[in-house]
Amino acid sequence: MENGGVIRWRFGCNDELTKASAITIRGVLNTLMDNLKPEDSRPVIPLGHGDPSSFPCFRTTPLAVDAVCDAVRSAKYNGYGSTVGIPPARSAIAEYLSKDLPYKLSPDDVYLTIGCTQALEVILQVLARPNANILLPRPGFPYYESRAGFCHLEVRHFNLIPERGWEVDLDAVEALADENTAAMVIINPGNPCGNVFSYEHLKKVAETARKLGILVISDEVYDHLTFGNNPFVPMGIFGSIAPIVTVGSISKRWIVPGWRLGWLITNDTNGILKNQGIVDSIKGYLNISSDPATFVQGAIPHILKNTTNEFFTKIVNTLKEAADLCYDRIKDIHCITCPSKPEGSMFVMVKLNLSLLEGIMDDVDFCCKLAEEESVIVLPGVAVGLKNWLRVTFAIEPSSLDDGLRRIKAFYERHAKKQ
Amino acid sequence: MENGGVIRWRFGCNDELTKASAITIRGVLNTLMDNLKPEDSRPVIPLGHGDPSSFPCFRTTPLAVDAVCDAVRSAKYNGYGSTVGIPPARSAIAEYLSKDLPYKLSPDDVYLTIGCTQALEVILQVLARPNANILLPRPGFPYYESRAGFCHLEVRHFNLIPERGWEVDLDAVEALADENTAAMVIINPGNPCGNVFSYEHLKKVAETARKLGILVISDEVYDHLTFGNNPFVPMGIFGSIAPIVTVGSISKRWIVPGWRLGWLITNDTNGILKNQGIVDSIKGYLNISSDPATFVQGAIPHILKNTTNEFFTKIVNTLKEAADLCYDRIKDIHCITCPSKPEGSMFVMVKLNLSLLEGIMDDVDFCCKLAEEESVIVLPGVAVGLKNWLRVTFAIEPSSLDDGLRRIKAFYERHAKKQ
Ligand SMILES: Cc1ncc(COP(=O)(O)O)c(C=O)c1O
Ligand SMILES: Cc1ncc(COP(=O)(O)O)c(C=O)c1O
Repeated sequence: MENGGVIRWRFGCNDELTKASAITIRGVLNTLMDNLKPEDSRPVIPLGHGDPSSFPCFRTTPLAVDAVCDAVRSAKYNGYGSTVGIPPARSAIAEYLSKDLPYKLSPDDVYLTIGCTQALEVILQVLARPNANILLPRPGFPYYESRAGFCHLEVRHFNLIPERGWEVDLDAVEALADENTAAMVIINPGNPCGNVFSYEHLKKVAETARKLGILVISDEVYDHLTFGNNPFVPMGIFGSIAPIVTVGSISKRWIVPGWRLGWLITNDTNGILKNQGIVDSIKGYLNISSDPATFVQGAIPHILKNTTNEFFTKIVNTLKEAADLCYDRIKDIHCITCPSKPEGSMFVMVKLNLSLLEGIMDDVDFCCKLAEEESVIVLPGVAVGLKNWLRVTFAIEPSSLDDGLRRIKAFYERHAKKQ
Repeated sequence: MENGGVIRWRFGCNDELTKASAITIRGVLNTLMDNLKPEDSRPVIPLGHGDPSSFPCFRTTPLAVDAVCDAVRSAKYNGYGSTVGIPPARSAIAEYLSKDLPYKLSPDDVYLTIGCTQALEVILQVLARPNANILLPRPGFPYYESRAGFCHLEVRHFNLIPERGWEVDLDAVEALADENTAAMVIINPGNPCGNVFSYEHLKKVAETARKLGILVISDEVYDHLTFGNNPFVPMGIFGSIAPIVTVGSISKRWIVPGWRLGWLITNDTNGILKNQGIVDSIKGYLNISSDPATFVQGAIPHILKNTTNEFFTKIVNTLKEAADLCYDRIKDIHCITCPSKPEGSMFVMVKLNLSLLEGIMDDVDFCCKLAEEESVIVLPGVAVGLKNWLRVTFAIEPSSLDDGLRRIKAFYERHAKKQ
C-alpha cells in the first residue's frame, strides 16, 4: 500500500450517518448559537429546547434524588442489568402505567430503555425491514426522520391540522398507507404543537390503524403534562382495537432528562405484536444494545410509587402559567399568531407572517437575526417540518420567559414593515 | 383489510435482529441457567461472565460512589448532556488516558459513550459502508460479530495463537485483508484469553495495519487489569504509525459495569480519521443515539483524578490471586488444560480433552451437564469462537472460586473414561 511513502488508507465512513444527523434539533440549535453576539451583556433566553431542568422552579423532587443516591450507596446495582431491564423496575413501570388503563400491563410488556430516545430507536430498527414505510406527523419530532432515514425505513408524512387543535388528518393517513406501511406515529401531549388529543380522536386513530392493519407508536414522553380541556389519555387504552407500542420516560414529568431512563411498552391484548415477531425482535435489538444505568433502574420503583401529587401539581401549574403568559404575550406580537392555546407538553407552534416584516426572508432568517440581535433562541419551524412557523418553548423560569417575549416584541417592532 | 372479521396486520420485523442476537454471551448463559437443578441446595457458582461487582472483595471504591451521589445532589446534571459528552468529562478522560501516552490527547479526541458497548456500536456502524469487511480475533468477544452482522459489515476471522501466548496471527491478518477491509480489532488485556500483548507485538500490529492501510480498533475495556510479565500498553502509543480507535470504560477497572460510562478515543496524530470522514460520522451517529447519564459524566473528573492507587492495587492483587488459584487447580483436572497462565482481564481459556471423558459430546454438553450436576456455570468455547474449549472467569470471591473448581474436578472424576 505504501508507494513513495504515501499510504492509501482503505477505510471510509458510512455516508448515511452524516445525512441522518443533519436534521436534528441539536444541530439546528447549535447553528443558531453561533449567531449569538458575545458583546450582548444580557443573558441568553433559551426558548429553543425542551429541557427546563436547570431552572429552579423546575427542580426535580428530592425524593427522586434520594432514591438514586440510596440505590448507588446500596452497592446492589453496580453490576450489569438484564437485556430487558431488572424485574423490580419492569414491575413498577407496569403498575404505574396500568393505573390509567382498563387492564393490567404485565412486567413482560415493559422494556427499559436509555430514555425515550432509545425506545424510539428500538421500535424503528425493529420495523425496518426491506421496503417498509412509516407514517410520521408533520410537524413532528425530527429524531424520527433521522433514525428512520438511517435504517432505511421510508418516511411518509401526514399533517396535523392547526385549525382542528392539531388533530391528525386521518384521511391523509388512509391515503398514504399501502401494503408496506408498518406503523403510524402520534406524539401526545404534542411536541412541537402543545396540543392534547381527546379520547374520541385517539379512538379514531386506533380504528384507522385497525382498518389499515398497522401498528400505532404512541410517544407519551410528555405524559400527564396537561393543563387544558383535554386530560391525558394513554393510547394503550385502545390496545384491544389495534396493537400499540407506547414509549415514554421519566425525562419530562420528573424533569430529569439527564438521568436517561425510559421505556417501551407493548399494549398487545390480542397478542398481535408477539405473533408478528415484534416482541422477539425488540429483545433481539436490546441484546445488542447498551442498557440504562442499573442503579437508576434500581431507584425507579421508589420514584414511581412515592412521588407526591404535590410535586406533579406544582410542575403542571408552573407550566400552565408559563403557557398562559406565552399565549397572551404572543397576541401582542403581530407578526406571529398562535392557532390554538397550548394545553400540554412544553411548546407552542406559532405562524410567522412575513408580510408584516421588513428584510426577513424566512423562519431560519428570523431565528438567526433574533439570536444575533436579542440573544433569544427560538426553533425555526423548518426543523420540525413546518416552514415559516416557529416553535417556542415556554418551559423556562417565568421571569426569563417574560424577558424573552419582550425581546421578541422589540425585535418585531424594529423589523415591522412601515405602513 | 378486514374480511370476515379477520384483520391482516401488515407490519413485520427486521429479521436481522433475531439472527444478530443469537450469539450473545447473555443468550448462551441464559440457556445454561435453564439446566440448573432447583433441588441442589448449594449456591450456584458463576464462572461464566465477567461481572464481579456483586462480590464483597470486588466492591468499588467509596470515592466513586460519593462522586456520583454528589453529582446527583448538586442538581447540575439533571439536564441533557451534549452529543459527544460534557466538556469537563471529555477533558478529564483525555488527561487520564494521556498519562500513559507519549503525546497529549485533546478533549476533542474523546467521545463519551454508554459503556464500552456503545463505543463498539458506534465505530462498527461508522465503518459499515457497502462491501466493507472487518477482521476480528478468534477467540473473541461475540458482541463484535452480532453488531457487525446487524449492520452488514462482513466479518473475517484471524486466529490468536495459544502457543504464542494468544498473540495475533499477523500473517493471517495480511492474508485476509483486501481492498474492502476497514479495520482489525484487538482486545487487550484479552477477553476471553486473559493474555496481555507486549509492546513489541502491539508495534507489529500497528505496522501491519499501516502496511494494509487499515484502522486498528483497540478494545481496552480491561485496561490496567494486568498481573503477569507484560505491563498494560495502550495501543494509542502507536497512533503515529496507524490510526487507532481505542474503546474503554470504567466498567472493569472500577468494577461498576452497571454505571454505563465508557469512551471512544481517536488516536489520530496524523489526522487520518478526520480526513477519511470517520470523525464526522462518529458525531453523526452519536447525534441519533442516547447518551450516558449526565450525572455520571459529571462525576467522572473526580473519579478519574482521585481514585487511590491503593484501590487499584487491591483489585489487581485479588485478581492475581484468583488467577493463580485457578491456574493451579486446573492442572489437577486432567480433562482441561491451560496453554498459558492468565496475565490480565478476568478470564482464562482452557482446552477440553474429550477423549478423557465418557459420554460428553462437546463443550456445550460439558457446560450443560456441569450446570445440571454441579450448579457451576462456565462458558462453552463455541460462544467465543473456539469449539471444545471453555472460558473460565476467575473474577469471583476466592472461596467461591475454590468451591467451583472443586466441583469441576468432582464432575471430571465422575465422567472420566475408565482406563
Ligand atoms: C417527542 C419526543 N420524543 C422523545 C424524546 C426523547 O426523550 P428522552 O429524553 O426521554 O430520551 C423527546 C425529547 O425531547 C421528545 O420531545
Ligand atoms: C472485550 C469487551 N469489550 C467490551 C465490553 C463491554 O463493556 P461495557 O460494560 O463497558 O459496555 C466487554 C464486557 O464484558 C468486553 O469483555
